[in-house]
Amino acid sequence: MAIVLGPNQYGKAENRLVTVSRNGSVHTIKDLTVSTSLRGDLSDTHLTGDNAKVLATDTQKNTVYAFAKEAPVGEIEDFALRLGRHFVGTQEAISGARILIDEHAWERIDGHDHAFSQGSNEKRTTAVTIEGSSAWVVSGVRDLVVLKSTGSEFHGYPKDPYTTLKETNDRILATSVTARWRYAGTDVDWAKSYAEIRSVMLKTFADKHSLSLQQTLYAMGEAVLNARPEVAEVRLSMPNKHHFLVDLSAFGLENDNEVFYAADRPYGLIEGSILRDDAPDAGQAWSTLPAF
Amino acid sequence: MAIVLGPNQYGKAENRLVTVSRNGSVHTIKDLTVSTSLRGDLSDTHLTGDNAKVLATDTQKNTVYAFAKEAPVGEIEDFALRLGRHFVGTQEAISGARILIDEHAWERIDGHDHAFSQGSNEKRTTAVTIEGSSAWVVSGVRDLVVLKSTGSEFHGYPKDPYTTLKETNDRILATSVTARWRYAGTDVDWAKSYAEIRSVMLKTFADKHSLSLQQTLYAMGEAVLNARPEVAEVRLSMPNKHHFLVDLSAFGLENDNEVFYAADRPYGLIEGSILRDDAPDAGQAWSTLPAF
Amino acid sequence: MAIVLGPNQYGKAENRLVTVSRNGSVHTIKDLTVSTSLRGDLSDTHLTGDNAKVLATDTQKNTVYAFAKEAPVGEIEDFALRLGRHFVGTQEAISGARILIDEHAWERIDGHDHAFSQGSNEKRTTAVTIEGSSAWVVSGVRDLVVLKSTGSEFHGYPKDPYTTLKETNDRILATSVTARWRYAGTDVDWAKSYAEIRSVMLKTFADKHSLSLQQTLYAMGEAVLNARPEVAEVRLSMPNKHHFLVDLSAFGLENDNEVFYAADRPYGLIEGSILRDDAPDAGQAWSTLPAF
Amino acid sequence: MAIVLGPNQYGKAENRLVTVSRNGSVHTIKDLTVSTSLRGDLSDTHLTGDNAKVLATDTQKNTVYAFAKEAPVGEIEDFALRLGRHFVGTQEAISGARILIDEHAWERIDGHDHAFSQGSNEKRTTAVTIEGSSAWVVSGVRDLVVLKSTGSEFHGYPKDPYTTLKETNDRILATSVTARWRYAGTDVDWAKSYAEIRSVMLKTFADKHSLSLQQTLYAMGEAVLNARPEVAEVRLSMPNKHHFLVDLSAFGLENDNEVFYAADRPYGLIEGSILRDDAPDAGQAWSTLPAF
Repeated sequence: MAIVLGPNQYGKAENRLVTVSRNGSVHTIKDLTVSTSLRGDLSDTHLTGDNAKVLATDTQKNTVYAFAKEAPVGEIEDFALRLGRHFVGTQEAISGARILIDEHAWERIDGHDHAFSQGSNEKRTTAVTIEGSSAWVVSGVRDLVVLKSTGSEFHGYPKDPYTTLKETNDRILATSVTARWRYAGTDVDWAKSYAEIRSVMLKTFADKHSLSLQQTLYAMGEAVLNARPEVAEVRLSMPNKHHFLVDLSAFGLENDNEVFYAADRPYGLIEGSILRDDAPDAGQAWSTLPAF
Repeated sequence: MAIVLGPNQYGKAENRLVTVSRNGSVHTIKDLTVSTSLRGDLSDTHLTGDNAKVLATDTQKNTVYAFAKEAPVGEIEDFALRLGRHFVGTQEAISGARILIDEHAWERIDGHDHAFSQGSNEKRTTAVTIEGSSAWVVSGVRDLVVLKSTGSEFHGYPKDPYTTLKETNDRILATSVTARWRYAGTDVDWAKSYAEIRSVMLKTFADKHSLSLQQTLYAMGEAVLNARPEVAEVRLSMPNKHHFLVDLSAFGLENDNEVFYAADRPYGLIEGSILRDDAPDAGQAWSTLPAF
Repeated sequence: MAIVLGPNQYGKAENRLVTVSRNGSVHTIKDLTVSTSLRGDLSDTHLTGDNAKVLATDTQKNTVYAFAKEAPVGEIEDFALRLGRHFVGTQEAISGARILIDEHAWERIDGHDHAFSQGSNEKRTTAVTIEGSSAWVVSGVRDLVVLKSTGSEFHGYPKDPYTTLKETNDRILATSVTARWRYAGTDVDWAKSYAEIRSVMLKTFADKHSLSLQQTLYAMGEAVLNARPEVAEVRLSMPNKHHFLVDLSAFGLENDNEVFYAADRPYGLIEGSILRDDAPDAGQAWSTLPAF
Repeated sequence: MAIVLGPNQYGKAENRLVTVSRNGSVHTIKDLTVSTSLRGDLSDTHLTGDNAKVLATDTQKNTVYAFAKEAPVGEIEDFALRLGRHFVGTQEAISGARILIDEHAWERIDGHDHAFSQGSNEKRTTAVTIEGSSAWVVSGVRDLVVLKSTGSEFHGYPKDPYTTLKETNDRILATSVTARWRYAGTDVDWAKSYAEIRSVMLKTFADKHSLSLQQTLYAMGEAVLNARPEVAEVRLSMPNKHHFLVDLSAFGLENDNEVFYAADRPYGLIEGSILRDDAPDAGQAWSTLPAF
């Protein structure tokens, strides 16, 4: 028996980058959180502490900021591809990279040239994986919190000895959507694709009459695949943020789906993937991302 | 020498309340976090554990939910006044109450009847204090995050032996505004007043060329008082969310206010109050709220 | 009517300071979060943006780190007094300062010379207020989470139409203690006083049979005042972290105070102060700290 | 082309469970956060909203609480195995389960029978995966924060055009350890194994002179495998919590590794696995856990 080093990666997490670009007096800002991870021939540093192949995480951080100056950041997918290919292309020992970027939303204050207010907590995300000359792009959105005040039922589930839940034909359905979609390739209009995927998911959440959160989840993924040929697969993680109807009968009041208690924990957690049966192989796209 | 009980209060904090109201098939939701605190003749429970005068915090919670059904919640100031006056008016031992409410923002998805997405993290707030037949209303906003990409300078400060900061004629100014304003009375159009105060604060932040965050803070409070006669006093707490210009000179790059590092901690913290010199006495309006 | 500047302060919040001191090969670390705030003749910066009297918050930060080198940090109360007096004593426009320090707990790993593991989340705190030549010290502890699995009752409270809570002779009592105590002077053995106050509070929480959380709170404050003559007043904020007995009757199981659901929100919140009737005047000790 | 449902799971996350057991007047508490996820033949609910095979997440929650009463909870691994096997064994459509449990630390106050204070933020964890009659146990620890004030170096790394980091022969090394170890089987003395693994990791962190955090990580995993034959594989995720030496030279002060700034973000992130070359196949042990 021998003890061996298995899969590993290292990098600099959560580099906070804000850029300002100017078109005359009109400014545009971009607010990103960038995490880089590298992989490759890294046995030496693990076994002996020899760092000759370890591009310092501080250097990775510097590269993020320098690259943001050397050319316009552009869409987060492009920036991540550029960073990942740079690390793999310039460090002989480094065979792979994973770049994660979250983009934080800002809105222009009323048409002012250079003043902004922060939008919702929702983040546009990307996770780019590079291995040698291959690249996979998984983009997404997280903390997209949505709620339907009707149009959601839940019944017909098995009743075992521990079941006390009452069936309902009308409940609040609320969730914080984390969606990740794998692109079939890298020749994509990222901004347009993101906007349309987000839009079709919101529309499906709103329109689809829901018999279970699973059904809503599947419908959202299916709608994305139907609308966007560039997407091979969608993975969704949707906590059921319970809104419990408050029992007011002790006070002589009937609560006709009007007054709810929004609970923190526990929460239901529904996770699923929806894909094309002829999707190209996922390769390493998901190798270090949450699986189900 | 004797040991005595000083000021005290008790209540139920962070009751999460969501209400749905219907106009035909069109739904409206309200999402509140409500905290109640009561004061009065409460020596017995502290000294002997006799709870005869202690309206249970569980009862306070129930009251919040029942009141939300008995009549429309309406504006948060009205709901807080109604709750506070109820506790003081129905419990002989209770002479005072403080009701805190945060309102969370939701936006309708595209014109759908009953589907919503969560807005920004910003909260509309109120803190209503009741003492006997008197009532004070301090409303506000918090987590309103704003940023200017230019139009901010900082120089002319004293240089002591520990000063290394470089003066600047152009910096990013970013802050998360917590504002509280004391109303002179309770006969106010709360919704309209809130909307206009928020708007004048945002406009002032954007328009005012800033030589210090203090100057911006004062200008925002002053603009509110000039625009809204119903407001007697404004208190603002504005962390300076530092965006540091990244030094790229080691890489042969000039950073002309384009690439910034957004820091978490430490942060500057600027706090101040702006008031009318003929404002009515504050009474207990601020008695349990942050002071400067 | 004129608009005027009211109370205000500014400073650098949450400077993270870690120091290492050596006694031969044996190291000792100190891990602090330090926040400084200054007050004084600050109208100019608010009204015109003239910063001639504004010692930069960056300079305040530098001072914290430099002072940590110039002499041993020592007890947090001493370090805060030293910082506050420096700012007030060296800046003509600055008449007052408030220094907040949290000390984070670390424990030595097994007798190793220079390796440590982080202790509980509990923080030792101090809030020192300086005004001219006067100084007030309010020290404390926060995030001290304690639980009793029996020895707590709650009954005898008023029953109004919104009361549904059942009385109990045996419940879990759990809380996260935030305590602040005002010292009568500044000639105190801070470390010893802290250790003994913490100990007497824990012992009282454990020993005192509780008929209400208010009674426990009062007993804890009273015990501190009885034990420690250097303390003039104690303020406690104790959330009632509810542990609800789970109703298992639907499954044919009796739950004899064995299985509980630990709830997050809402929570009871009990706040009170206990003081000597001959305590010296509080002066500005509490002026910017939470009041009840 | 068809759109198909891929891997999916659903359950109830973060059930907060506290149990009290009594030995005469001496109480013992257990404080757990339990998350359950089920998998199996779940196409119907996704495709049509037919829930006939969906054991409600509310029922899963009830089961957690009922099981805590039906027999002593015992070690978290045993409780998780019992829960997972129950779901898979009683629901025909359910072929697999994943049970995650975090155990929160409490310490007895001074020998009191029934009073406790919360220990460090560190959590003992387990992730049990069931598929049919197979079971895999991956236990661990997270939020174990450790620091060495010396005995850590970092040098010899490549210098590319973006490298500015200075080499060092003496730095603070601090990290928050998340460790997960896969057991080769399920016939294990869980409590003893946990205690000894934790102890050997702490000792190795403290004793091992570190030339890179990777070297420390590998040494910790290797030491566990050398000491504990029941462990097949160890995965570690160790953020480098940077403590930067403060440059005090502008103030005429030399900082001889005495005064540090503890930074929040960005942080290095080192992740790796260490395993026996003859370890049994991992099967589904890691299938829904973080991969590298």
